[in-house]
Amino acid sequence: MKNFYFYNSTKIYFGKDEINKIGKLSKEFGKNILLVYGKSSIKKTGLYDRVIKLLEEEDINIFELGGIDPNPRIESVREGADLCKKHNIDLVLGVGGGSVIDASKGIASAALYDGDPWDFYSYKVESKGALPIASILTLAATGSEMNSGSVITNFETNEKNGWGSPYTNPKFSILDPTVTYTVSKHQTGCGIVDTLTHVYEFYFSNEKSYLNDRICEAIMKTVIHYGPIALNEPENYEARANLMFSSTLALNGLTGFSKDFEGFNHITEHVLSAYYDIAHGDGLSILVPHWMKHILSEENTEKFYEFAVNVWGIEPEENKAYVAKRGISEVFNFYRTLGMPLRLKDIGIIDPDFDLIAEKSVKGETLGKFVKLTKEDVKHILMFSK
Amino acid sequence: MKNFYFYNSTKIYFGKDEINKIGKLSKEFGKNILLVYGKSSIKKTGLYDRVIKLLEEEDINIFELGGIDPNPRIESVREGADLCKKHNIDLVLGVGGGSVIDASKGIASAALYDGDPWDFYSYKVESKGALPIASILTLAATGSEMNSGSVITNFETNEKNGWGSPYTNPKFSILDPTVTYTVSKHQTGCGIVDTLTHVYEFYFSNEKSYLNDRICEAIMKTVIHYGPIALNEPENYEARANLMFSSTLALNGLTGFSKDFEGFNHITEHVLSAYYDIAHGDGLSILVPHWMKHILSEENTEKFYEFAVNVWGIEPEENKAYVAKRGISEVFNFYRTLGMPLRLKDIGIIDPDFDLIAEKSVKGETLGKFVKLTKEDVKHILMFSK
Repeated sequence: MKNFYFYNSTKIYFGKDEINKIGKLSKEFGKNILLVYGKSSIKKTGLYDRVIKLLEEEDINIFELGGIDPNPRIESVREGADLCKKHNIDLVLGVGGGSVIDASKGIASAALYDGDPWDFYSYKVESKGALPIASILTLAATGSEMNSGSVITNFETNEKNGWGSPYTNPKFSILDPTVTYTVSKHQTGCGIVDTLTHVYEFYFSNEKSYLNDRICEAIMKTVIHYGPIALNEPENYEARANLMFSSTLALNGLTGFSKDFEGFNHITEHVLSAYYDIAHGDGLSILVPHWMKHILSEENTEKFYEFAVNVWGIEPEENKAYVAKRGISEVFNFYRTLGMPLRLKDIGIIDPDFDLIAEKSVKGETLGKFVKLTKEDVKHILMFSK
Repeated sequence: MKNFYFYNSTKIYFGKDEINKIGKLSKEFGKNILLVYGKSSIKKTGLYDRVIKLLEEEDINIFELGGIDPNPRIESVREGADLCKKHNIDLVLGVGGGSVIDASKGIASAALYDGDPWDFYSYKVESKGALPIASILTLAATGSEMNSGSVITNFETNEKNGWGSPYTNPKFSILDPTVTYTVSKHQTGCGIVDTLTHVYEFYFSNEKSYLNDRICEAIMKTVIHYGPIALNEPENYEARANLMFSSTLALNGLTGFSKDFEGFNHITEHVLSAYYDIAHGDGLSILVPHWMKHILSEENTEKFYEFAVNVWGIEPEENKAYVAKRGISEVFNFYRTLGMPLRLKDIGIIDPDFDLIAEKSVKGETLGKFVKLTKEDVKHILMFSK
């Protein structure tokens, strides 16, 4: 087990009606709030009105930035930062999924910076601070509600880059599973795949850590158990609650305390998204199973065997390679059952430029820590995902 | 899944040689440190000299309170608080196991209080603050390094009471598994039993929470896997590291985020300790298996079945009651393998006053949340533990 630092500064308020605390919790940071949200969904469900009412009851001045895209744009970050500067904002409150929270982090950082916010995301400058950030989560997926990460897309340069600073963990996040009752089947599926992929990124590691692996398995088993239930019964509280907190724990430091981040799936998906503006979960659903199939080898059979037996419940047997393959085949089956895409053509990407995607994904000699992939490997995986 | 608040303010520095950070980390809190430690072990192992040197390199003024007992006394808390007041202490640094850290929490709280510290532990007054606390952990067991709890014994009144406040989480804790290489077999066994019992206290709950249960199982499996390895190879880093972080996670909020604390085992053990000054792990080792045997019923067969299959690897079969019993029998076997006591007589408690122990344990009508036990039940469990 390698050395690690373990700490998370975000306070989580979890459960039905915890949203009622938003007024009092927000007020502790000041009187001026920038409310950040996405397209129309929180207005349709009534969550928008509810939050506005709760904030107004505390005499909070609300400024708004709606319309954040699923792949949030650097333009939104710029716009939000300008609002913060203009209105002397005390707290940036994101109400939405990971995209909205990611945008809020960029906005809160850019509010204290004179240059262009893309400087952070292109790793040109270090952030020296951020306004306080908070969130009300409406989608179980990215884990952004309890980490410092933020992924923003720049379609001028076709880059979708992840970044974070010591100042971008939300001060608090409110997680009410009932607000996810209205999340569509497809978006629920995307969230499930995203959560699982966050776990895979640490589980498939050459760093040995028994406890870390068992915790990863606990989260994967929960998601696999409740994913189909949530799709069939969208208002099943236990299913929504278990999926929601699983997605938080999958990327809050717990799944990777003594592990490296593998990287291939997230990095390559970001490149795909930066060119085709696809849903993150769709991209991961296509890449992950083909990646597993490609990298399975004698060297890592033991790990995939463990994955098959401990996560997918495959009967152990002597032929470990066979069991390992059955595990990977379960991943294909599971994503199919969720109605998630397994081919690029399923999401309308026909004849993509494999060279370009591979080139942009593999920036150094190789990509990935568990198995080091060359550009040729990445092209191979993409070709089989066609 | 019931509503919950999830946050932990302690920063963990985990791994070999992380102790080298103690000087710089401590200095952030000020120049005057009260170093709290136990009997002679940290002097024997060289840890004392190492810590002193690292603190002196940062020009820190060190005041000392050694000799903390395994069941730390209220007298030590009083003495430590006096030292804090006299020397204008900025940080109370506990170097030791749970007892030392628990004492440090009491001392840091009492340092800012004019009355007697037992007022906190007898729940007479609420604490309004505490000096900053930090720890270097030398024993994987209580989890005190990452929670607010503190258990102190008053042998004048024969009470061993647990207490904590919003101010008693350590600011940071350093966990270096190599310092536990010298922990004796018996103390290692006590730590294993204590860690497992912390998990049981939440796992055996009537609150349904799938994710919470799977995480509990992850920690239990790790402890069961590495416990015997650590006993046979005391310098096995992986074993010591996995046991150490398991003990931290077992009582830092992760195992009980959506669960009630069961209570019987800890409360009854505290009563036993308050009369017989026994090791906490010994008391738990005797109580837990007999408690499981006593409470198993048709109503909770499913839970014990899950425990048997998921934690102890018992082959599932239709007769669930039989599988459940086999699980409990594995607990007896495991504790025996660790060389831990299973009878009160094994630790020299002959013919104890069962009435008195039961009376002191069951303060209301019943004790325990998973299964509500009457005084007669507690007496029954104690009689079978004779």
